[in-house]
Amino acid sequence: MFREKIKVFDCTIRDGGLINGHDFDERFVRAVYKALSEAGVDYMEIGYKNSKKLFSPKEFGKWKFCDDDVIEKVIEGIESNTKISIMVDVDRVDIDDVKPKKDSPVDMIRVASYVKDIDKAIFLVNHFADKGYETTVNIMAISRALDNELTEALHQLDEECKANVIYIVDSFGALYQETVEFLVKKFRSILKTKEIGMHAHNNQQLAFGNTIEAIIHDANYVDGTVYGLGRAAGNCPLELLIGFLKNPKFDIRPILDLISKEFVPLREKIEWGYIIPYAITGILDEHPKAAMALRKSDKKENYREFYESLVGDDLD
Amino acid sequence: MFREKIKVFDCTIRDGGLINGHDFDERFVRAVYKALSEAGVDYMEIGYKNSKKLFSPKEFGKWKFCDDDVIEKVIEGIESNTKISIMVDVDRVDIDDVKPKKDSPVDMIRVASYVKDIDKAIFLVNHFADKGYETTVNIMAISRALDNELTEALHQLDEECKANVIYIVDSFGALYQETVEFLVKKFRSILKTKEIGMHAHNNQQLAFGNTIEAIIHDANYVDGTVYGLGRAAGNCPLELLIGFLKNPKFDIRPILDLISKEFVPLREKIEWGYIIPYAITGILDEHPKAAMALRKSDKKENYREFYESLVGDDLD
Repeated sequence: MFREKIKVFDCTIRDGGLINGHDFDERFVRAVYKALSEAGVDYMEIGYKNSKKLFSPKEFGKWKFCDDDVIEKVIEGIESNTKISIMVDVDRVDIDDVKPKKDSPVDMIRVASYVKDIDKAIFLVNHFADKGYETTVNIMAISRALDNELTEALHQLDEECKANVIYIVDSFGALYQETVEFLVKKFRSILKTKEIGMHAHNNQQLAFGNTIEAIIHDANYVDGTVYGLGRAAGNCPLELLIGFLKNPKFDIRPILDLISKEFVPLREKIEWGYIIPYAITGILDEHPKAAMALRKSDKKENYREFYESLVGDDLD
Repeated sequence: MFREKIKVFDCTIRDGGLINGHDFDERFVRAVYKALSEAGVDYMEIGYKNSKKLFSPKEFGKWKFCDDDVIEKVIEGIESNTKISIMVDVDRVDIDDVKPKKDSPVDMIRVASYVKDIDKAIFLVNHFADKGYETTVNIMAISRALDNELTEALHQLDEECKANVIYIVDSFGALYQETVEFLVKKFRSILKTKEIGMHAHNNQQLAFGNTIEAIIHDANYVDGTVYGLGRAAGNCPLELLIGFLKNPKFDIRPILDLISKEFVPLREKIEWGYIIPYAITGILDEHPKAAMALRKSDKKENYREFYESLVGDDLD
């Protein structure tokens, strides 16, 4: 038995782009799209839509901007039912860069927002929805959200926002499954007509387990990335999600091939996954940026010292 | 708040020994014992007690036999409240090799058994209990146990066996948390006076999540290994367990140091962890031996072909 409403959402290129300045070559992105299409994955998030007034295309790869013609080139000629998504961050997008849906290869736009920026997120989502896109709001860093502020934001989303899906985003990989259960039930109780999504990070090897937990309590949009690729500890491995879900439309084989041919070699060039400094920031509910800096330093394996540096602040 | 009854049980050397023929040098084992002692870990399982009539000490390292004098040498002079455990397999131990507890550094003996061998396990446990040891029965490959046979075995354990703890062992790393919940509740309902233990394998990155799930439903003995060391995909990472539990007696720092100094270099020499062929055997609820053989072959990264070889049998 399976729940047909469950949608598997791949964000390999988008979240993985946070490691390498969004600089995947077109051949690689096309290989990912082809494999996801063959595997029956519902959505592929291909990058961010950032304003070129704020970020220079000389400094970042093309998946930080996701021009429509670049997307069209990599998906051209591949038979697919996989929808294309892009992500926008509050305050970093120029809405005039986004054409009406009917003129674009993009199907969905996801707006990433902290709880405090929820009004801006709602404005963006409603704008994109009016242009014809499916939309979501992804509430970042939810492990740090104050409950009263989250409650208010969810009521606003329910009443004022055209998003189809509201996502729980465990940006720091800090959640344990009891809190996932609490949050999904809370979202479910307030959001009368919207689906709930789960985007987990893998600092404590809980991304997959927490995603299952969210599914158990009625989240229907679940994010994964191929081989767990993603910033720092990475994400819920898509191959495990496909292995778990019983919907016969999914086929794990193309993903296995893709990992063999593309992701095992890639892992030799860029680093992600279960690495102790990322586990430490997860345990301490901190952003991984200090751990990412450590991994680029000559103290990259000094775990105890790194831990002490994070817990050593004077109490006040 | 924490549950004081929870005991953290390290089996780094015992389960890790399945990778390298139990051939850790004494310096390394002593470093592990020292760090576990400083970290406040309750038990350390240091190896197996196998009969030297069945296995040759020329072919295997000393932690396959765990002579008392070898154990005494590595723990000597280290201040510690960490108890020492050894594991025995049904049909592989010579019970005359086991001295009375008062003459041995060993505190606990764990008997590993399939459901079908439960009568033999009960005999062994009662023998060791009569010699003065704490004892457990570890029910292996529980994802393959038929429910009626498991029910009968649990009733026997409740009525006839002197073991203090009965363990759920997910040998294949195949369980999802819904089944963990089912099993812990089942164990709890039948075993009136015994504690429940959880030993998870990490094929699908669920060892830690499933261990938390077992704790939620009242398992009080939880196994981990430093940096997840263990056969194939390895085990629940001890450092994550220590990071999760709130009992102030635990200190993660010595474990972090140990990983930096000993386990990061070790991982360069021997392989364990999240590797796709082990994920595949976990998804398919199979013993990892075929995947272990694959990893030693020149087809080690041929994931799709490996998957096909496991699912390709004719149905009957």
